Amino acid sequence: MAKLILFPVPIGATDPDTSLPPYNRELLNACHIFIVENIRTARRNLKRMGYSSPIDNVTFLELNEHTSPLDISHYLDPIAQGEDIGLMSEAGIPCVADPGSLITSMAQRNGIDILPLIGPCSIMLALMASGFNGQNFAFNGYPPIDEKSRTTLLHTLEQRIYRDHQTQIFIEAPYRNDKLLQYLAAHLQPTTRICVATDITLPTQYIRTRLARQWRTDPPQLNKRPTIFLIYK
Amino acid sequence: MAKLILFPVPIGATDPDTSLPPYNRELLNACHIFIVENIRTARRNLKRMGYSSPIDNVTFLELNEHTSPLDISHYLDPIAQGEDIGLMSEAGIPCVADPGSLITSMAQRNGIDILPLIGPCSIMLALMASGFNGQNFAFNGYPPIDEKSRTTLLHTLEQRIYRDHQTQIFIEAPYRNDKLLQYLAAHLQPTTRICVATDITLPTQYIRTRLARQWRTDPPQLNKRPTIFLIYK
Repeated sequence: MAKLILFPVPIGATDPDTSLPPYNRELLNACHIFIVENIRTARRNLKRMGYSSPIDNVTFLELNEHTSPLDISHYLDPIAQGEDIGLMSEAGIPCVADPGSLITSMAQRNGIDILPLIGPCSIMLALMASGFNGQNFAFNGYPPIDEKSRTTLLHTLEQRIYRDHQTQIFIEAPYRNDKLLQYLAAHLQPTTRICVATDITLPTQYIRTRLARQWRTDPPQLNKRPTIFLIYK
Repeated sequence: MAKLILFPVPIGATDPDTSLPPYNRELLNACHIFIVENIRTARRNLKRMGYSSPIDNVTFLELNEHTSPLDISHYLDPIAQGEDIGLMSEAGIPCVADPGSLITSMAQRNGIDILPLIGPCSIMLALMASGFNGQNFAFNGYPPIDEKSRTTLLHTLEQRIYRDHQTQIFIEAPYRNDKLLQYLAAHLQPTTRICVATDITLPTQYIRTRLARQWRTDPPQLNKRPTIFLIYK
């Protein structure tokens, strides 16, 4: 039966053999309709991943802030005609920190089978290497920009670390990374630990855990480098 | 420089080519010391993953509830002598829902480089296919067995779904899966959605999202099948 296949994409310009199981490429080559955030980068990603069918025959369906809900409502129609549809992220696994769940929730409502494939998830790779609790953790997306909301949220999440033993995970717009680390180092309790995980899967990968007060001196340069921030006791 | 490498293991008796990037095997074959939960299953997993060095020359260091903290404190000593050490889970990625973070936190304290590798994470595969919010989610491990604590926790987490838009994820001892689904279907608000993700990466994989009240009729048989439970609005 035809299905919706969730295709992860390598992060950055890395060799796909470091990030994707060989099975993914088999399924990729048999798929000719893809839902993507951006057609130009999706073409490039297909090539990088070794897509061997002619790319000119591929149908791309765009899913981003400009797509109307009415368009989306027809995206999965080809599945009823027996055609698999692929959902690709820009980088990493789809439907985590991207708009893909609009499509998967529609598929679930319509009883369509979904096949999620294995690939790089920087959140989980960071968590694995942080040394923090992996039996209880939360990914909170982007912290609010407004100083007051940010302080309130950080306080709530730091409580969850100590009371529920729950690791707290964030991301930030890459050009604000240095600011966020500075903020966390200054506002968390001095002995709360912060893990900074940068350039995950890239040759410049850096994953380091130190106490909040230790990060106040000699912080790394994180500007424009994709970074995951984790905090724990 | 020598490092601690985190090796994921395929879930169940699946072909490693469906779950692991080829790069993992290269690093695996160059590694001769492994920290594992159980030596017998670790040997079997190494063979299954195509480990090509003689297994009799491998040093296994056990990490489980019987290991003393004093033993563990020496596990990473070979890294100072230039020997990579591998940390393997029983199934899936290490340091998530297993005791591996005892080792990674020690490595972080000692400034040892950690290389987390890509592999199957049933929590993330379930989240991807659930249709739920992947921009804010929490993994809560096992719910408490005691009825009163369970009800209190479930109430708190259901609030976080509606107030913080945070997907809530659990696991349960596999022989109690059917009971947990019954409990969730009965105690959550009737229109809260539950995703049941069972036998992830296996041929019998089943991932389905329905309203709590819909799960009250025709529940699937989950007994002894590894299952992830997700709830969202």
